Amino acid sequence: MRISIAVDAMGGDHGPRVTVIASIRFLEETPEANVILVGRDDDIRKVLGTVRSAAVDRISVRAATEVVEMCEGPASALRGKKDSSMRVAINLVKDGSAQACVSAGNTGALMAISRFVLKTLPGIDRPAIASHLPTRKGVTTALDLGANVNCTAEQLVQFAVMGSALVAAVDGIERPTVGLLNIGEEDIKGNDVVKETAELLKASDLNFYGNVEGSDIYKGTTDVIVCDGFVGNVALKTSEGLALMLSDFLREEFTRNPVRKLLGLFALPVLAAFKRRVDPRRYNGATLIGLKGVVVKSHGSADALAFRYALKKAYAEVAHGVLERIALRLAAMPAPAATALAMPGANDA
Amino acid sequence: MRISIAVDAMGGDHGPRVTVIASIRFLEETPEANVILVGRDDDIRKVLGTVRSAAVDRISVRAATEVVEMCEGPASALRGKKDSSMRVAINLVKDGSAQACVSAGNTGALMAISRFVLKTLPGIDRPAIASHLPTRKGVTTALDLGANVNCTAEQLVQFAVMGSALVAAVDGIERPTVGLLNIGEEDIKGNDVVKETAELLKASDLNFYGNVEGSDIYKGTTDVIVCDGFVGNVALKTSEGLALMLSDFLREEFTRNPVRKLLGLFALPVLAAFKRRVDPRRYNGATLIGLKGVVVKSHGSADALAFRYALKKAYAEVAHGVLERIALRLAAMPAPAATALAMPGANDA
Repeated sequence: MRISIAVDAMGGDHGPRVTVIASIRFLEETPEANVILVGRDDDIRKVLGTVRSAAVDRISVRAATEVVEMCEGPASALRGKKDSSMRVAINLVKDGSAQACVSAGNTGALMAISRFVLKTLPGIDRPAIASHLPTRKGVTTALDLGANVNCTAEQLVQFAVMGSALVAAVDGIERPTVGLLNIGEEDIKGNDVVKETAELLKASDLNFYGNVEGSDIYKGTTDVIVCDGFVGNVALKTSEGLALMLSDFLREEFTRNPVRKLLGLFALPVLAAFKRRVDPRRYNGATLIGLKGVVVKSHGSADALAFRYALKKAYAEVAHGVLERIALRLAAMPAPAATALAMPGANDA
Repeated sequence: MRISIAVDAMGGDHGPRVTVIASIRFLEETPEANVILVGRDDDIRKVLGTVRSAAVDRISVRAATEVVEMCEGPASALRGKKDSSMRVAINLVKDGSAQACVSAGNTGALMAISRFVLKTLPGIDRPAIASHLPTRKGVTTALDLGANVNCTAEQLVQFAVMGSALVAAVDGIERPTVGLLNIGEEDIKGNDVVKETAELLKASDLNFYGNVEGSDIYKGTTDVIVCDGFVGNVALKTSEGLALMLSDFLREEFTRNPVRKLLGLFALPVLAAFKRRVDPRRYNGATLIGLKGVVVKSHGSADALAFRYALKKAYAEVAHGVLERIALRLAAMPAPAATALAMPGANDA
């Protein structure tokens, strides 16, 4: 089956310069895929004209005259820009022309437009942002990373269901372990919502491991980590900030004086191997999960390599049938979790 | 003025083996200080007997027969162990025999006993856990790191007041900048409590910078970072986990094969300099702030070097009059923040 991906070519800090080149490289390594580049025709064709690749045959361009700004409010983007590259790309998923949309644009706008156009899956109250994070053992999938600042226990259970389905589909782990992010492993710790969530997860058919702490994320204690979007976003951004600081400190120490620079030269291949291993570009691509369609958000500052990883992620989710997996899991949920999922207020998008 | 520090000699994973040795090293570099070692007489004297140092003259031992276990519940420690080393050490602060208490014991028990014995400062509803974190520019002071999982806006403002006073006293920054940890810099982001807190901080006489994100912690954007204990604890533990993973990865890359090991030998002095720079032991010692007394919590797994840093921190807080600074700042708070601070429920400890 051919898979078409709609790319918001104007999104992100670099626009077509990154999105177009990344799309071509992605197509070169993925013969079963097509890409529809959405955005300002001239801007896209200018970059396309610089590339020689047989993969260009699998690219089509869909014009969209407007661009959602990186700092624009979701409401303004949703109501005021019906012909934005972001909106048109999501419309292509809605009408079946594409099976997934990838954008490096503004997260709030992407979430608002996706919810409005695609709607949420039955049984899902609010979509979440899920992403792979590197661990000692491989990867873990954490959600929500910033879409929902106030979550009920029922919503956190929905995140656990969606995260499990995502990991089962993409990582091939049939019954992924689920950890609930908390401030201590003991049941008595944490706030009321987290305590209630733990009870619901215990009663569910998910492979619930129990409470985990922040340090468990990188230990790889569980395959899925569930938290509300405020906590998840702080954990993610804190990690990004710490990793950047440490890598800067390491570079500074290796360039402090000529002798150190020489030592650094000797160590260069090892440092490069280290850098490759924790390269955040390899983890680029957060899934807006819970929608009736696959939408992947790339980091705004992504370069072509990073954006290519986001495209691969979207492709993998379609190829492995993530949406169908979530629907199956939701249908299989026994009471009381299923009751919780069917509570009033659910699926009110 | 001589400053006496009561040390819970039995606390932490290693007990007297670490606490006694650290106390002696601390006294050797701090001629104005005394230490009262609290705990099982035999255990303490056994370690003291192995050391030759003139500083031993400034050590006294205060017997306490019980020990609070690392996994013991706060209520059990508070009600069931009136003669624990932790309780007796805090009693010494209460009765004026010591000006500060340092413990590597169980955090929940230390907080519960401290609140019960020492009480909170006037105008402070609940104590918080504050600690230095390393940044690109030096250090920042973050609170709350885990004492309070649900905070009101008024409590977060109290944390900002206390954090500012702590930084002004210990770091000598007269009007420290205060950042409110949030998931976006825009005012519209975040949950209701955070939004309300931002309004109160704007109206206060604190040097409020505005919202900051997780990545700002390590950028050193502000001198003080305020958040609730759930978020702060997750950010702290996530950072610890990431730093450990990265340092393990670095070591693995430098030991992967004989050639790499040789390169690692060349790079050793640089790697050592890097490691010193981010050594978490240098930041050991979290302050239980908001109490009528100085209480510093050391990491449970602290070694003698790390525990010495916790002792230095307690000493510095007493020497710089942190408690008096907080009282002055609280008295100087104008309405509406002062009104908020005087609301019913405040100081109900």
